[in-house]
Amino acid sequence: MEETFGSWQDHGTHHLDLATFAAQLERLRAVAAIDDHTDVVAVHLSHHHDASPPLEEHLAAVGARAVDDGTVVGHHEPVTSPFALGPVDPPSATARAEAAERLAGLATPAGALGRLGDLAVWVAATQGTVPPEPVERVRAVIFAGDHGVARHGVSAYPAEVTPAMVQLFLAGRAGVSALANQHGVAVRVLDIAVDADLDGPVAEHKIRRSSGAIHVEDALTPAETRAALDAGAVVAAEEIDAGAQLLISGDMGIGNTTPAAALIAASLGLPAIEVTGRGTGVDGDAFARKVEIVQQALDRAGDRVDDPVETLTALGSADLAAAAGFMATAARRGVPVLLDGVISVASAVLAERLAPGAAAWFAAGHRSTEPAQSLALDKLGLVPILDLGMRLGEGSGAVAAVPLVRSAAVVLRDVALLADLDL
Amino acid sequence: MEETFGSWQDHGTHHLDLATFAAQLERLRAVAAIDDHTDVVAVHLSHHHDASPPLEEHLAAVGARAVDDGTVVGHHEPVTSPFALGPVDPPSATARAEAAERLAGLATPAGALGRLGDLAVWVAATQGTVPPEPVERVRAVIFAGDHGVARHGVSAYPAEVTPAMVQLFLAGRAGVSALANQHGVAVRVLDIAVDADLDGPVAEHKIRRSSGAIHVEDALTPAETRAALDAGAVVAAEEIDAGAQLLISGDMGIGNTTPAAALIAASLGLPAIEVTGRGTGVDGDAFARKVEIVQQALDRAGDRVDDPVETLTALGSADLAAAAGFMATAARRGVPVLLDGVISVASAVLAERLAPGAAAWFAAGHRSTEPAQSLALDKLGLVPILDLGMRLGEGSGAVAAVPLVRSAAVVLRDVALLADLDL
Repeated sequence: MEETFGSWQDHGTHHLDLATFAAQLERLRAVAAIDDHTDVVAVHLSHHHDASPPLEEHLAAVGARAVDDGTVVGHHEPVTSPFALGPVDPPSATARAEAAERLAGLATPAGALGRLGDLAVWVAATQGTVPPEPVERVRAVIFAGDHGVARHGVSAYPAEVTPAMVQLFLAGRAGVSALANQHGVAVRVLDIAVDADLDGPVAEHKIRRSSGAIHVEDALTPAETRAALDAGAVVAAEEIDAGAQLLISGDMGIGNTTPAAALIAASLGLPAIEVTGRGTGVDGDAFARKVEIVQQALDRAGDRVDDPVETLTALGSADLAAAAGFMATAARRGVPVLLDGVISVASAVLAERLAPGAAAWFAAGHRSTEPAQSLALDKLGLVPILDLGMRLGEGSGAVAAVPLVRSAAVVLRDVALLADLDL
Repeated sequence: MEETFGSWQDHGTHHLDLATFAAQLERLRAVAAIDDHTDVVAVHLSHHHDASPPLEEHLAAVGARAVDDGTVVGHHEPVTSPFALGPVDPPSATARAEAAERLAGLATPAGALGRLGDLAVWVAATQGTVPPEPVERVRAVIFAGDHGVARHGVSAYPAEVTPAMVQLFLAGRAGVSALANQHGVAVRVLDIAVDADLDGPVAEHKIRRSSGAIHVEDALTPAETRAALDAGAVVAAEEIDAGAQLLISGDMGIGNTTPAAALIAASLGLPAIEVTGRGTGVDGDAFARKVEIVQQALDRAGDRVDDPVETLTALGSADLAAAAGFMATAARRGVPVLLDGVISVASAVLAERLAPGAAAWFAAGHRSTEPAQSLALDKLGLVPILDLGMRLGEGSGAVAAVPLVRSAAVVLRDVALLADLDL
């Protein structure tokens, strides 16, 4: 949108030429407090300065124009953070109806494709296209982070595993790497809150080292929560701009099933004992301790959990918040998301709370062994595609389900219609 | 093996030369009743004829040699039908153990791959190789046939659909075609017993038109059952010789869930009411009629069902028998089979009875909505990979599961070992 900002006088523009005008614009931004989301497209030329043709050409050359009043006019993107709260539009109801009609007309007995048919209708609705386009460009982002609770005996593995696994993703040799390579899924790993100093692009969206131990302190400051949501939103936008037709959020972080269980419990109003699972393999006393920590965290957060941002601040982590921002933004941009295990689904529950309606853009890749994941999927109204007893995380269950999403689209697109049968 | 046949005198061999010897061999086959499975490698040269050097050279040139006694010696393949009854060897226990050990050593939490890990171990055991080779060459054969019971109100569709669907497979536009095309699976359709006259290679293994209405008559004659098993065995051998690493048997045939239910009921000792499903969509009176027909068939067959070949003759069909021969032969040749829905699994139950141990070479692609399929999979000790409420047949559920079998092999092959992690 084009918007008018408060009036501003710059007596330094008298002798503008093309080379200096860009520099002047930068100065204008600072003086008039025009943020980076605003492109200046018009500048008032004060009355003691004529809008002479050469200057107008100079302005046009940098994308600006002269105007008559005493203002700066900007081509304006709303001045907000990259992450936006609030409801999202649903997938196309028209395409959904058309897809259901086409499905019923395929040369297969009615309903014979089962949930593959339902999935095909969902894909068509998210694309707004019938028959759906092949789902070729799938991109997974792994949000890695450590968790303060990991130092309190909730995990079968030490936190040092997190940075080692990040290196393994970068080397393309983790579980999800093998699956993604098989299915032509792009994988990007981001250190959001790993408790180590990692270099390079992997750390370009880093929020902090680890997150708070949620049973005794908030996971994040409010500013960190906001920054994590923004990071997720920026990453989603980048992946979508790179052409993603389907997004996946993966996770890596020793201890992460504890905040995931807490987020789901808080959002569904359930006690710790109903949501806490065995993660990578805790049992006996360690499992009892994990339940206790989740319940302590819930008790500590109290009714702050009525607000989704506060819920992330109190009980989440930077990596879980970033994933929530990623998913909510994907939904807002109209790009579907395939969910993975309990970490991914915990972020999806928060995404739905932050951006009501987002869940309509989600499909569940698989059912993990964590009880909180199934409870949360029920709440989101999602039925998993695969149920293989997997609990690897990393986005692996979602990536393993990618061929089925593709199959759904292919079947609705390529199978003959009953009307074409020679009967 | 080299074997000695009864003595034989041919006074026509006196003046053999290279050109006529081959013709003489053909004559010899006829006179001495030597079957096509025997290569003649030695011929007695009767005492009034010297084994002169030129003649020995002639014999060598056609792969034969002169011998001293009064016999014909053949390089002999056992004179049997293509289909063999009896136990099959299991997949490699050594490879299974090595694969389980490798799985436990991957850079993933113990057990985190769930049934994908189990599947990887199975693939390795069937290949006898650790890590397993990528499962690239997958071939599906659709055994099409009609069923006498279809004229008795057990199906929601008329039998005319069967040949129309065969044409759709040939055109590559059926449900399974779309999936197979996506996954690079070769599909071959065979008219085993379609109640129409189809031309060309599709009919090269045709046994008969339709099969008997099992509630009032045998499905097949004993000779037809044998011919169908042989056809399945020949087709399996052809597909394996073409390089198949994994085989799938698909089905097409209006009415085929009725004999499938009867075969499973007979093999598991269950009454009709426990195994009969709704097929492509019968309900109400038609469903009750279907249960009645299955029970009539079981009652008519009586204790003939104690023998697997008799079971196929009484209650099966040519297409189901061919698929059973196909699967049993694949197992005997050490090539794994991915099962589809109730038709495929009914044939698998018979394959296991015909060739005990065959089921160890089978994996279950998906759980169909037919109750008999789940009962039979339990009996075979198999847990399906997918559970998507599909009931299309055609091999579609198995083809949809192919990426998971491939994923299993890929993960066990390509994921780093825990020992490689930088900890």
